[in-house]
Amino acid sequence: MSDFDYDLFVIGGGSGGVRSARVAASLGKKVAIAEEYRFGGTCVIRGCVPKKLFVYASQFHEHFEDAAGYGWTVGETKFDWPALIAAKDKEITRLEGLYRKGLENNGAEIFETRAEIAGPNSVRLVKSGQVVTAERIVIAVGNGPNPHAALPGHELCISSNEAFDLKELPRAIVIAGGGYIAVEFANIFHGLGVETTLVYRGAEILSRFDHDMRRGLHEAMEAKGIRILCHELIEEVSKRDDGRLVARTKTNGDLVADQVMLALGRDPFTKGLGLETAGVVTNERGAIVVDQYSRTNVPSIFALGDVTDRVQLTPVAIHEAMCFIETEYKGNPTSPDHDLIATAVFSQPEIGTVGLSEEEAAKRLGELEIYRAQFRPMKATLSGRAEKTIMKLIVNAADRKVVGAHILGHDAGEMAQILGITLKAGCTKDDFDRTMAVHPTAAEELVTMYSPSYRIRNGERV
Amino acid sequence: MSDFDYDLFVIGGGSGGVRSARVAASLGKKVAIAEEYRFGGTCVIRGCVPKKLFVYASQFHEHFEDAAGYGWTVGETKFDWPALIAAKDKEITRLEGLYRKGLENNGAEIFETRAEIAGPNSVRLVKSGQVVTAERIVIAVGNGPNPHAALPGHELCISSNEAFDLKELPRAIVIAGGGYIAVEFANIFHGLGVETTLVYRGAEILSRFDHDMRRGLHEAMEAKGIRILCHELIEEVSKRDDGRLVARTKTNGDLVADQVMLALGRDPFTKGLGLETAGVVTNERGAIVVDQYSRTNVPSIFALGDVTDRVQLTPVAIHEAMCFIETEYKGNPTSPDHDLIATAVFSQPEIGTVGLSEEEAAKRLGELEIYRAQFRPMKATLSGRAEKTIMKLIVNAADRKVVGAHILGHDAGEMAQILGITLKAGCTKDDFDRTMAVHPTAAEELVTMYSPSYRIRNGERV
Repeated sequence: MSDFDYDLFVIGGGSGGVRSARVAASLGKKVAIAEEYRFGGTCVIRGCVPKKLFVYASQFHEHFEDAAGYGWTVGETKFDWPALIAAKDKEITRLEGLYRKGLENNGAEIFETRAEIAGPNSVRLVKSGQVVTAERIVIAVGNGPNPHAALPGHELCISSNEAFDLKELPRAIVIAGGGYIAVEFANIFHGLGVETTLVYRGAEILSRFDHDMRRGLHEAMEAKGIRILCHELIEEVSKRDDGRLVARTKTNGDLVADQVMLALGRDPFTKGLGLETAGVVTNERGAIVVDQYSRTNVPSIFALGDVTDRVQLTPVAIHEAMCFIETEYKGNPTSPDHDLIATAVFSQPEIGTVGLSEEEAAKRLGELEIYRAQFRPMKATLSGRAEKTIMKLIVNAADRKVVGAHILGHDAGEMAQILGITLKAGCTKDDFDRTMAVHPTAAEELVTMYSPSYRIRNGERV
Repeated sequence: MSDFDYDLFVIGGGSGGVRSARVAASLGKKVAIAEEYRFGGTCVIRGCVPKKLFVYASQFHEHFEDAAGYGWTVGETKFDWPALIAAKDKEITRLEGLYRKGLENNGAEIFETRAEIAGPNSVRLVKSGQVVTAERIVIAVGNGPNPHAALPGHELCISSNEAFDLKELPRAIVIAGGGYIAVEFANIFHGLGVETTLVYRGAEILSRFDHDMRRGLHEAMEAKGIRILCHELIEEVSKRDDGRLVARTKTNGDLVADQVMLALGRDPFTKGLGLETAGVVTNERGAIVVDQYSRTNVPSIFALGDVTDRVQLTPVAIHEAMCFIETEYKGNPTSPDHDLIATAVFSQPEIGTVGLSEEEAAKRLGELEIYRAQFRPMKATLSGRAEKTIMKLIVNAADRKVVGAHILGHDAGEMAQILGITLKAGCTKDDFDRTMAVHPTAAEELVTMYSPSYRIRNGERV
C-alpha cells in the first residue's frame, strides 16, 4: 500500500472508468470511483444501449407492413411512446445495477459525486468538499453533445441526451447533423411515425464512410420518406405561439417541427475538471492529450475513452482501460491498438464497415480491385419492400489483401464484427474465394464476387 | 467440334447442372441440358428458396408478440396459407425464368424432358425417344426424399416436396426425422400456428452437430411449444374416418394429425437412369461414384451435386460444376474442396456452424480450448421473450487455430458465412482477440471471450 488514500482513483463511471476500476480492484488494488450521474456512461445511459432498443422499436412498423406479402393480415397497430421509455428505463436501471455490482463485488469504493482534479495525486469530491489522494488517477469522464451555442435559439433545441427521455413523441422533428447519431435518430423517429427532416451542411451524410454506403443509405432513407437536406444550415430556431418550433434554414425556408435535435459533434467533458491544478494538457478541442499508454503529461494521471477524443466507441474505451491495467498493474506495457476497428451505424438499413473506404484506399495504394454487389434482400421479394443490400470489398491488388469491407443492409453490424477478424488477420481475397457459400444468406455475396467490378489505378477508376 | 451432336450434355436442371451447362456454353461449347420438371432444382423449386421464404413467413408471429414490449399494440392478426403459397410460387417462377434465361442467353439448348443414359456418349430423350450423342455427359439429377416404403401407411404421408404445396395448412402435423429438414419444417409449421410434433429415433436432433447446438435448439423449440419425441419411432400411419391421420408410435401412443411428414433422408435419383447401359458404377446407397474431378468410372461421364452424395448443398454442387469446367474446358485440373464448409440450419433460432464440433475435435486433437458464451439477445430484454444465444469456439491448443465455430441465435447463418472465411484462412484465437468489438452486436461475443470456458485434454473435459 502506498502513502496515498487509494492506489487508483477513477473519475467517471462509464465503460472505460468502470472497467479500469473493477479490474484494478480485482487485482487487490485499493480503488475508488466517482460518478456524478449514473453508472454505465454514455453507452448504457444515453447511447448505444437505449439507441439500439429504440431501433428495435422503430422496426416493428416495417415488420407489420412486410407481413402482408407473406400472407398475414395485421389489425390496427398503435405505438405508445411513454411505454417504450418506461421499458427502456427499466432495462437501463438493470444494467446500471450490474455495473455497480461489478464494482462493489470487487471491492471498489463508490462515490456518488462529481469529482475534480485537485493536484497530480489528489481529487476533490465536490459533494462533500473532501480531498482524497491516489497514487494514480484515471480520468474517464467522457464527452457530450456540442450545444452549438452560436446558433440563435439553440436553447430551444434538444440533443440526443434529451431525445432518450422526451415526455411525448413529436409529430415532426428536425435533426441537424450528418454523423451517425443524426442518421440513427432520423431513422428511429421516422420508424416511429414522426415526420423527420435531416439537415446537414456537408455534401453527403456520414463523411469519411465509403461513398457507396453514404449514397446508398441516403437513397434508402429518402425512399422511406425521410427528408434529407444536404448543403444546408439552420440559421435560427424560434418558438411559435402555438408552441411548435421553427428552424429557419439558409435555402429551404422555414421547417416547422415539435423538436429540433442538434447532433453536431461531441465535446470532451474537461471544463471545470480542475485539470489546470495539476497542469494536465488538453488540445484545442478540450480533449486530454495522452501518450501511447493513455498517460497524460502528468505521470500520475491517465485518461481514456471519449475524453481523449481518440476513437469514440465503447469497446475502444474498454480496450484502453484493459491496456492501462496491463501496463500499470501487470508489468506488461501495452498500447491500445486503434487500427482496423470495425463499426456499425444502426441506421435502417444498417451499415457495417471495417478498414478503408474506396476513397481512402485510392489515396494510399497504387492499385485496387473493387468488388461490389447490389441486390434485393430475399425477404423483400415477397414483402415487396423496395430496398437493396450493397456489399463491397476493397482489395489491394499488390498483395490481394482485403483492406476494406463495407455492407449496407440487414445485419450489417453483425457481419462487420466478423469481417473485422478477417481484416485484422490480414486475409486475402483468395481466402474469401476459397470459402464455400452458405445458401441462402446475404453474406454469401462476400465469397462469390469472383471478378472485380472495377479497378482503381493511381487514384483513377479504370 | 467433335463428331458428337454436342460437346456437353447435362442431365438435370438444378444448381450444378445449370451452372455446368451455362458456363460451358459461354465458353463456346455446344451444350444441351435436359430437365423433366422445372429448372432450378431442389434449391429453387422445393428446397432452400421456398424454405427460407416460409421461414420468414413463420417469424412474423413472434414479431407481433415482441412488439408489445416495445410499446406497440397490434390488432388481431390472421394468416392465409394459400396466399403464402401463391406468393412463393410467383417468386419461384421468376427465379426459374432467370435460370432458363441464363441458359438461353449463353446458347445452351434446352430439352424439357426426362433424359436417360443410353451409352458412354449417348443420351435418350424420353419424351421423343430420340437418342443424341455428346463428347461429355454430366449427370446432375439430384436426389429426393426417401419414401420409407417399409412403413405401413407411408403412402398417406407427405415429404418436404408436398409440404411446399399443401392445399391447406394442417391444424396438426407430425414430422418424422431429426435432420435439418425435419427441424426447419417443425419450426415453420409451428410458427404458422400448427400443432407440431417431431418424432426422431435418435438420442438428440441434428446428429453430428455440436452438442450445445443440438441441446440448445431442442430446448428452444420445446420452449416455443413444439413437442419433440426422441428415441421414438412411428410404426404405422393410418387414416381415420374423419380423414385425420394417426401415427402410431412405439412408446408415446397414437399421434393424431392432419399431415404426417417424413424427413428421413434423401435418395439419389439414379433408378431408371440407364446407368447400366454405360456401366456407370453406383454405391450401396445408389449414389454415383466419382473421382476427385467428379468423373465416374466411365471417362466421358461425370456426375456432380446431390446424386453423388458427397455434400448435399447447393453451393457445393455449384462449386463442383465450376471445378468440372476448370478441369475439362480450361485445362486447369481442379478438385472440389469439401473441407471446412460452413452451413446454416434455418431453424428458429438459427444454427450457423463451420468446422469441427467439440465431440469431433476431441477425437482428433490432443488438447482443446473451448470458449462458450450464452446470453439473452438484446432484443429479448424488452420483448421479454425467453430465448438465448449460444456462441462457441473450438480452439486447437497446440497452435491456437480456431477449428470450429458454432452459433445458435439470430443471424447465425450470416455469421457462419463469414466465420467460414476465418477458418478457411486458418485464423487463430489470437486473431479473434486482437479484433475490436462492435457494440452492441451479438457477434461481439466472438471476440470478447478471453478465457476458455473449459479445456478438453485427450478427449476428457478438464
